[in-house]
Amino acid sequence: MLLDRIDSPSDLKKLSVGELPQLAQEIRQFLIEQLSSTGGHLAPNLGVVELTLAMHYLYNSPSDKFIFDVGHQAYVHKMLTGRMDRFHTLRQKDGLCGFVKRTESEHDVWEAGHSSTSLSAAIGMALARDLKGETNKVLAVIGDGALTGGMALEALNHIGHEKRKLTVVLNDNEMSIAPNVGALHNYLGKVRSDKTYRKAKEELEWLLRKIPAVGGKLAKTAERVKDGFKYLVVPGMLFEEFGLKYFGPVDGHDIEKLLDTFRQADKVDGPVLIHVLTVKGKGYSPAEADSLKWHGITPYKIESGQVVKPVGPPMYTEVFGNSLIELAERDERIVAITPAMPAGSGLIPFAKRFPDRMFDVGIAEQHAATMSAALALEGLKPVFAVYSTFLQRAYDQVVHDICRHNANVIFAIDRAGLVGPDGETHQGVYDIAFLRHVPNLVLMMPKDENELRRMMKTAVDYNDGPIAVRYARINGLGVPMDEHPQPIPIGKWETVREGDYATVLAVGPMVQVAEEAAELLKREGIGVRVVNARFIKPLDEEMLLSMAQMNQPMLVLEETAIAGGLGSAILEFYAQRQIHHLSISLMGVPDRFVEHASIKEQRAETGLTAEHVAQELRAKAVRVRQKAT
Amino acid sequence: MLLDRIDSPSDLKKLSVGELPQLAQEIRQFLIEQLSSTGGHLAPNLGVVELTLAMHYLYNSPSDKFIFDVGHQAYVHKMLTGRMDRFHTLRQKDGLCGFVKRTESEHDVWEAGHSSTSLSAAIGMALARDLKGETNKVLAVIGDGALTGGMALEALNHIGHEKRKLTVVLNDNEMSIAPNVGALHNYLGKVRSDKTYRKAKEELEWLLRKIPAVGGKLAKTAERVKDGFKYLVVPGMLFEEFGLKYFGPVDGHDIEKLLDTFRQADKVDGPVLIHVLTVKGKGYSPAEADSLKWHGITPYKIESGQVVKPVGPPMYTEVFGNSLIELAERDERIVAITPAMPAGSGLIPFAKRFPDRMFDVGIAEQHAATMSAALALEGLKPVFAVYSTFLQRAYDQVVHDICRHNANVIFAIDRAGLVGPDGETHQGVYDIAFLRHVPNLVLMMPKDENELRRMMKTAVDYNDGPIAVRYARINGLGVPMDEHPQPIPIGKWETVREGDYATVLAVGPMVQVAEEAAELLKREGIGVRVVNARFIKPLDEEMLLSMAQMNQPMLVLEETAIAGGLGSAILEFYAQRQIHHLSISLMGVPDRFVEHASIKEQRAETGLTAEHVAQELRAKAVRVRQKAT
Repeated sequence: MLLDRIDSPSDLKKLSVGELPQLAQEIRQFLIEQLSSTGGHLAPNLGVVELTLAMHYLYNSPSDKFIFDVGHQAYVHKMLTGRMDRFHTLRQKDGLCGFVKRTESEHDVWEAGHSSTSLSAAIGMALARDLKGETNKVLAVIGDGALTGGMALEALNHIGHEKRKLTVVLNDNEMSIAPNVGALHNYLGKVRSDKTYRKAKEELEWLLRKIPAVGGKLAKTAERVKDGFKYLVVPGMLFEEFGLKYFGPVDGHDIEKLLDTFRQADKVDGPVLIHVLTVKGKGYSPAEADSLKWHGITPYKIESGQVVKPVGPPMYTEVFGNSLIELAERDERIVAITPAMPAGSGLIPFAKRFPDRMFDVGIAEQHAATMSAALALEGLKPVFAVYSTFLQRAYDQVVHDICRHNANVIFAIDRAGLVGPDGETHQGVYDIAFLRHVPNLVLMMPKDENELRRMMKTAVDYNDGPIAVRYARINGLGVPMDEHPQPIPIGKWETVREGDYATVLAVGPMVQVAEEAAELLKREGIGVRVVNARFIKPLDEEMLLSMAQMNQPMLVLEETAIAGGLGSAILEFYAQRQIHHLSISLMGVPDRFVEHASIKEQRAETGLTAEHVAQELRAKAVRVRQKAT
Repeated sequence: MLLDRIDSPSDLKKLSVGELPQLAQEIRQFLIEQLSSTGGHLAPNLGVVELTLAMHYLYNSPSDKFIFDVGHQAYVHKMLTGRMDRFHTLRQKDGLCGFVKRTESEHDVWEAGHSSTSLSAAIGMALARDLKGETNKVLAVIGDGALTGGMALEALNHIGHEKRKLTVVLNDNEMSIAPNVGALHNYLGKVRSDKTYRKAKEELEWLLRKIPAVGGKLAKTAERVKDGFKYLVVPGMLFEEFGLKYFGPVDGHDIEKLLDTFRQADKVDGPVLIHVLTVKGKGYSPAEADSLKWHGITPYKIESGQVVKPVGPPMYTEVFGNSLIELAERDERIVAITPAMPAGSGLIPFAKRFPDRMFDVGIAEQHAATMSAALALEGLKPVFAVYSTFLQRAYDQVVHDICRHNANVIFAIDRAGLVGPDGETHQGVYDIAFLRHVPNLVLMMPKDENELRRMMKTAVDYNDGPIAVRYARINGLGVPMDEHPQPIPIGKWETVREGDYATVLAVGPMVQVAEEAAELLKREGIGVRVVNARFIKPLDEEMLLSMAQMNQPMLVLEETAIAGGLGSAILEFYAQRQIHHLSISLMGVPDRFVEHASIKEQRAETGLTAEHVAQELRAKAVRVRQKAT
């Protein structure tokens, strides 16, 4: 095995070019085997084996900077930089991160989990290099999907302006996570196809070569035309228009051609773009056949490609998708918008049922949000389905375009709360804090999957402005489903259990955790009231005022950042009502980034378990008794 | 006067095309006169007189949808839609808004104050039209600067994909607010210049016409080349690559040509882009000569173009700019980044002093933030200067790229707090709420301009992660300036006045308001302590704990949204420390958008005046006495 000899990029450089295809084969075998037990981003990594080999073979990481957009296609890079022995811990607590991670290796110079940041990072690193008078190379690997993200285009515009030496490697697999959309995608399609560009280029060149023979004015004009149009008649001139020298398209699975192209591109003193054609899932037939499914995968059987089926009640995501179809059958105004996450957001069935009412806008959260505002102002009911962490990208559009217009946009915020193995770049723990202060917005979270359906009905019936439902990346509780889900009065909480000692105000899945804690304490004779604080905004002011009269100790429990969360809202409410006597404690996600682990482990780590809640309430009881004596 | 006859677009349609140039002239005269007393966005509006006339002459607003990007170039539109008599109230409290405003007129269908939203709005309205089976036109007017904003490029990508009928009017004045930057700008420059494209196009066509004469294979190939390249050899093919049919460039001050072009474009059944060349400030020589200065202007003398010079101490903006130069003289690591606001951010002197260390990235807040992270990771000290309201655009990049990387980026957040006549789209009242929950960030605000200099020094000396200074859009207090500003210990507040009854914890300019309130109450024998809570994060925990022991009533005073603000942070702190006995009141901006008016009026409206603070403290005193008896 060649792979056994590779512990660092310098080991790789000892191999001959001729040995690299075998190494690529071994790397694929390793990934297919390892990921069959851990799961992970298999298809994207199988697509970049040769590309990553070529980069490490030719350049000198970490002095040359390798920047991987999104960072989930860096497994091969991790393997070549001394981390092969940790792959069995991939995406597990204290194990190898599924993304690039600076603390793991000096070769990891730029972290990302969100798309389209690599070009900004690349020009930043190139500027820093030039200011420091250094000469290292800077290479950004970006997918064709990520390139449609607005910030990547902003960066491309700036790169063309600055004209610094750097290399953009466009990893074109005709896919973002979902099949790609947009004019840029069509453009790349044309570039890929030899017919439109390549041949035309050859033909024009042939034609122009012939011209001088006819002599005179014709020849002179031909020369000028040749000069003027030379740069137009290359594929990739869109990038040339942006100011980058274009190379390609090159077969991303042919290492020799890749090395040749990199060497050619190195000669350019300015920004270059190398257009590399890759196949997602390359070398593993189930992944090649369905690269969408195999983008991020749970453990599987290698031979059959069979995936271990999850058991249990449906995920919230699925309940959302089905609920939306039911509602859309009866309400023509409903349309769905997704920024490149039709499958992840549970919208595939909706797209099949209502193809004309489904808009996948590509990786473009900002555009998705603002377009939703316009659809709403024109009388439709846009449902903007988006992960909590990606909604961060559209914060300004939520404020400026949706809420300021008081537009009837419905937000379906998936992956709200702790998200498990994707880790710190993907945690959905800030949306309450970044949405709660925005005027006009209603914000809800269901305690179970049936309540999600009721909230979707509530949202569709509501015509007074924007309304958001957030829900977790977990299975529902398996509760019975109402035949006709009824709307919930805006701002009305629900007491799910009575108790005479203290009240827990819980949000979403934490309601169940609170109930479990209450059960534990019941055995100890402590009666705990549990409130399903299902509206984060507006608060149930009536209930809060009556609770102030009860004067029980209170605990706010939420799987979200404490800073700016529901607990904070409740404290503000009482402060503004000059109610200052209450004992209110807060439990939630502390002020630090929470790394990858299972959701269960992340909850334990942040104290969001029934045991911790019970313990906190016991301590509160002791304090109250001490105060009384 | 033709203008006297125009009260609505239908009046306009009664004029002959030949009369329109005279009307344009009258409109310019009106704007130059009106704005000389009110101030406002003069230059952008002088640039779009003919364009707006042509649109209203040809199309039927409001059934045809006119969308103005940024919305500050809609004055002519306002004049033509019955609002001429209100221009003397422009940008004043209860007066005409400086931007498009739906409550003002049915002709105002899309509001904006932030750039680059119009294309998303246009495709949203086009989709809604098609879903509803209607046939109205949708036109978006977008500047060449706004087009570099990422979300506009996201929308362009989607527009090309959807192929719906809509018109993008590219208002190309070779400027955003500041001289434009970026590859797209260079591209437009080439398109504007006949030499590169127009002539080359003509020459190729001439050449191809000659080819058949030579016959045989050459002729055949020429035909194929002609077909293959026809669409390449037009100016604007970058837009054609994005899937929009390109028209232009057309002289934006020639109404007949504009009408012709619109009519031609109307025949296309899909998205079109009309490239209109305009001159910012057209028709008023001072504004034509310095359109940057005349973009948004204070009152001026018409004859001389002299602007009423502001009096008083320097603005915070200016103090920041000068401070940065002083620091950069001694620290080579410092570089400045602005998203198209070099003048507004006070960075022109810095750019002159350190041209190689200043990066204007265009309207591209997301890219600016992420590039700053990369610069910091490579050992530089990037200072990202940005208005509070525009930092909203980079929220995700702040979280994901700067704070998660714990990168040493310095944020200089200008226009923090109430901003006056720009109104609700520009208020800087959310940055505390959207930054406070982000791990690793230090957030400060100075009580006066000398403290701003100390904070800049603090920020430059700090090497443990991101640090932000926010400051208001007002003059400083005229305090003496330290010769060598000293850093402030991180998280240390300052007691600026002692008092035995209550404590006001105030932020930024509110410290002075608190002092004034304390003066008022002193006369009534009520002693008020005032604390300059200059670190919003981290809090001064030591001082907070000692205040808990004092047990004085407390009032938190901040010119920012109450929800998620400093008050909220203090309430959370005490709740997490199980300190529940304190009487803490909150004063700040309530949960609604605050419209245009002077800052003084906006403060009065939101209760942020010395009188209100004194009143609140008196009421607290009554409550405390009642409780005691």
